Amino acid sequence: MTTTPQSLFATHEATLRSAVEASRSRAYWSAFPEMPSPRAYGETAAADGEAAFAAHRDQPFALDQPGATKAPAGTLGGERSPFGFDLGITYPAPDIDALIGAAKAAMPGWRKAGPDGRAGVCVEILKRLNARSFEIANAVMHTTGQAFMMAFQAGGPHAQDRGLEAVAYGWKAMTDQAPAARWEKPQGKNPPLVMDKRFEVVGRGIGLVIGCATFPTWNGYPGLFASLVTGNAVIVKPGPTAILPLAITVRVAREVLAEAGLDPNLVTLAVGDTIAKDLALRPEVTLIDYTGSTGFGDWLERNAHQAQVYTEKAGVNSVVIDGTDDPKGMVRNLAFTLSLYSGQMCTTTQVIFVPKDGIQAGAERMGFDQVVAVLAGGVDKFLSDPERAVEVLGAIQSDATLSRIKEASKLGTVALPSRAVVHPKFPEARVRTPLILTMDAKEEDKYGHELFGPIAIVVKTDSTADSLERAARLTRTRGALTAGLYSTDPALIEQATEAFVEAGVALSVNLTGGVFVNQSAAFSDFHGTGANPAANAALCDLAFVANRFRVVQSRVPVVAEAAP
Amino acid sequence: MTTTPQSLFATHEATLRSAVEASRSRAYWSAFPEMPSPRAYGETAAADGEAAFAAHRDQPFALDQPGATKAPAGTLGGERSPFGFDLGITYPAPDIDALIGAAKAAMPGWRKAGPDGRAGVCVEILKRLNARSFEIANAVMHTTGQAFMMAFQAGGPHAQDRGLEAVAYGWKAMTDQAPAARWEKPQGKNPPLVMDKRFEVVGRGIGLVIGCATFPTWNGYPGLFASLVTGNAVIVKPGPTAILPLAITVRVAREVLAEAGLDPNLVTLAVGDTIAKDLALRPEVTLIDYTGSTGFGDWLERNAHQAQVYTEKAGVNSVVIDGTDDPKGMVRNLAFTLSLYSGQMCTTTQVIFVPKDGIQAGAERMGFDQVVAVLAGGVDKFLSDPERAVEVLGAIQSDATLSRIKEASKLGTVALPSRAVVHPKFPEARVRTPLILTMDAKEEDKYGHELFGPIAIVVKTDSTADSLERAARLTRTRGALTAGLYSTDPALIEQATEAFVEAGVALSVNLTGGVFVNQSAAFSDFHGTGANPAANAALCDLAFVANRFRVVQSRVPVVAEAAP
Repeated sequence: MTTTPQSLFATHEATLRSAVEASRSRAYWSAFPEMPSPRAYGETAAADGEAAFAAHRDQPFALDQPGATKAPAGTLGGERSPFGFDLGITYPAPDIDALIGAAKAAMPGWRKAGPDGRAGVCVEILKRLNARSFEIANAVMHTTGQAFMMAFQAGGPHAQDRGLEAVAYGWKAMTDQAPAARWEKPQGKNPPLVMDKRFEVVGRGIGLVIGCATFPTWNGYPGLFASLVTGNAVIVKPGPTAILPLAITVRVAREVLAEAGLDPNLVTLAVGDTIAKDLALRPEVTLIDYTGSTGFGDWLERNAHQAQVYTEKAGVNSVVIDGTDDPKGMVRNLAFTLSLYSGQMCTTTQVIFVPKDGIQAGAERMGFDQVVAVLAGGVDKFLSDPERAVEVLGAIQSDATLSRIKEASKLGTVALPSRAVVHPKFPEARVRTPLILTMDAKEEDKYGHELFGPIAIVVKTDSTADSLERAARLTRTRGALTAGLYSTDPALIEQATEAFVEAGVALSVNLTGGVFVNQSAAFSDFHGTGANPAANAALCDLAFVANRFRVVQSRVPVVAEAAP
Repeated sequence: MTTTPQSLFATHEATLRSAVEASRSRAYWSAFPEMPSPRAYGETAAADGEAAFAAHRDQPFALDQPGATKAPAGTLGGERSPFGFDLGITYPAPDIDALIGAAKAAMPGWRKAGPDGRAGVCVEILKRLNARSFEIANAVMHTTGQAFMMAFQAGGPHAQDRGLEAVAYGWKAMTDQAPAARWEKPQGKNPPLVMDKRFEVVGRGIGLVIGCATFPTWNGYPGLFASLVTGNAVIVKPGPTAILPLAITVRVAREVLAEAGLDPNLVTLAVGDTIAKDLALRPEVTLIDYTGSTGFGDWLERNAHQAQVYTEKAGVNSVVIDGTDDPKGMVRNLAFTLSLYSGQMCTTTQVIFVPKDGIQAGAERMGFDQVVAVLAGGVDKFLSDPERAVEVLGAIQSDATLSRIKEASKLGTVALPSRAVVHPKFPEARVRTPLILTMDAKEEDKYGHELFGPIAIVVKTDSTADSLERAARLTRTRGALTAGLYSTDPALIEQATEAFVEAGVALSVNLTGGVFVNQSAAFSDFHGTGANPAANAALCDLAFVANRFRVVQSRVPVVAEAAP
């Protein structure tokens, strides 16, 4: 049987409907197994993925996209693993006019595939990506510095779930109105007015996805699939240090499109240090998805007037500690949060507000200094075994973060110094443990802006009310993707929930077990809200998809048939 | 029984569900009777409405909103009926800081009313407005120049239907995800992770509605109700010549809000010539709905970075005539379209493309000149009886349009001159019939930009293919809200439909009866597409509402109960 968009829809319709239902109910659901187990992925999957990654190294990455051969500057690349070796991969330098021309030419055929057909193709791309999760995990690990397990989960199945979520939302939004209707308006004693109407979903143009250095697939897939499923072409511009995961993604997407009889130029790759600005201002580019620095995000929002711009930028995430009846669980939970991927997550807690008079911890009072001590001790103990530590910490992604750790240690009183850990397998990997500082609440000029990386500050406040007021204000002024609260007082929890709703940030309360403030689950947790400066959109909701397409109608009168 | 948001939701839930269902099916539906009949509105409704309008005249318009008494400049007004008399109404000069402060203070209570409660309140406001349709019709008539029947229908029930449509879409979008969920993630042999989650809908801030001179309620209600139902406060800034219809609207909204125990400052009025720019750049203003000139619309899109901006601007609407088997019906239909409200609709056809070799009209060929002659003759005949003519034409809204008619007559060959008609009831009314010109296709510099008012140009093209190419290009470059086609060739109709879908404009085919290209029906026809320069949004779809609110979540672990 020939593969068509419609046949792919038939194959994946049940998955799609489950995804739509999960995104409504917000109960637990996932389409892609998160454990890298042979049972889920096959006996040879791990070895195959490692071999596929090895085969990419020291080679040109072949991509048969337009302009690749006649590009002026030849090839680009230069990725280096934070675990200590060069990838040696080169990519075709993009010919922007050729990519844009090819993308525009591909769009009418993509429109005609219709909402169902496009959704079917997109789910098929995601399933193919899932099958390559080990290869992608290695690519993510050795570009971002994530340890393997995280690179597999966040870079593979969790990213694919976020992509599927975007497909499901896009499909739901596109099919919100009937594709055709008979409209019959009564006219009293006269015959009714009767019209046949058609409602066509039309993509807005070309989507540009600007990838980030730390989560190229997880942060890239929502925009990529939201734009693609809604009828647009997509040009993927990876961050210069994390190209490979998105290059593999583009290649897989092109393969599936071609197999389904569609133009593969609907998805292309544009590698280059300075081309993001050029692409972002092109009139053909009507959608931009961006994750990265506030500076460039603000520039996009203020200059790319022709496009709908979705940004995720910097923020300062807070946790407010009022009290807990499980101090050990709290410390264990926070230690993991601060350590995971060396705090290089946009969702990692940076500021922990503790009242100067301390907290109620189970049966006893715990002074401010004691809270700091148990937290520092908890992190230190959690990372005491190097073999285990490196599997949580991963490696430091950028030189800038390395320097930041050094500089930050001068900002306040050091409660726990950051130390280098020698990676048992990769001796050249740059591994660092979290730095924990203490500061006074009034030193907001030091702790109140993003210090990206393994840097946490315990801030001494007058009271929990003071903590809440400060955390909410930081969220409103500096942005935040996450907030946390520990308290045993139901009234205070309700009051804090209200304060964080008004500040516009997702709140996690009393996490002491296996759920962490810096992790969100597709189909249930929204990542970001769009309601504070850290992001102007959420992953994923109706607002994230509904503005990526238009509905264009036609209508024609129905002529009454002559009586027989 | 006390009126509450929840009790209003209970009262109006069936209406709301019908509106949601109609907007999905796109079949005919309306909540508000469009005929100004005593049966629908009551025996005394017409007289009561006229009396209510008369009572507004030569009076200050009382509105108990913040800052009204201490406003610096006193009062503003100066509306004059295009039918020839001053309204003599004055409005409180706004104190912008007071309005913004009061709006922000009102929002938390409005959020707590929840999606259902807010929708209930909004439908109640619309029902109250409906009961005052005669009063509003008189206000619309004597600010915009619409004839009474149109002022009633478009200014009353049709505008109310468009408002209800926005409420229905907003309610649907806000309730797209469950308000709360229990999330239970399996952990193999270990107990599952269990979290309780809440998802709160939060408005983005203050919505600013900038009204237009010709359809203050019809173009104003969608933005007003879309922003309001989604949890925002709204400041209504009417066009300086059409204040009264929106002032009445604001007063009714405030009454209903207060009766439901809510803060009436959620809806306020800001009258003034130059305050739109000041308001539009305020950081508290996060949503802007604008109908008017392309110049100010572009300025808003480029400068109000803090806000989501929805604009409807200028355009050039085309009809392509290829052939017809009902030439009389075609001419009758076009004559009405060109005459209705003297062509002062953003949806009125401006350019009619006809091939130089003429068209097939029923059994015979009709040359280009003959097409022009029957069209000019049809319009002339349709408007030959002054008493009937004024009920279609209404009056010319602005001096600028009066001058434009005069200037335009020099642009091409006059096929039908515009003439003044003496209004039997209002001798000072400025009534004008449509001017019809002919031009050659190459004179696009003359016909290819908006000539707002009763000005139509029949353009001579090489062929229907040429006509289609030109109409589609005009749409893409200059924008259009409507397009029309007359053809008896099914293949050509399909090809033209495709061309107009790609150009991004709604197409009406072979209209010869009681449906007109310049009219759209709420719940079935989208007004505008957002896919060409005439508008960046459609009334009304998911994209129009989904970005007006945010979802903010909180989550807390469910602690396993001890076994009994």
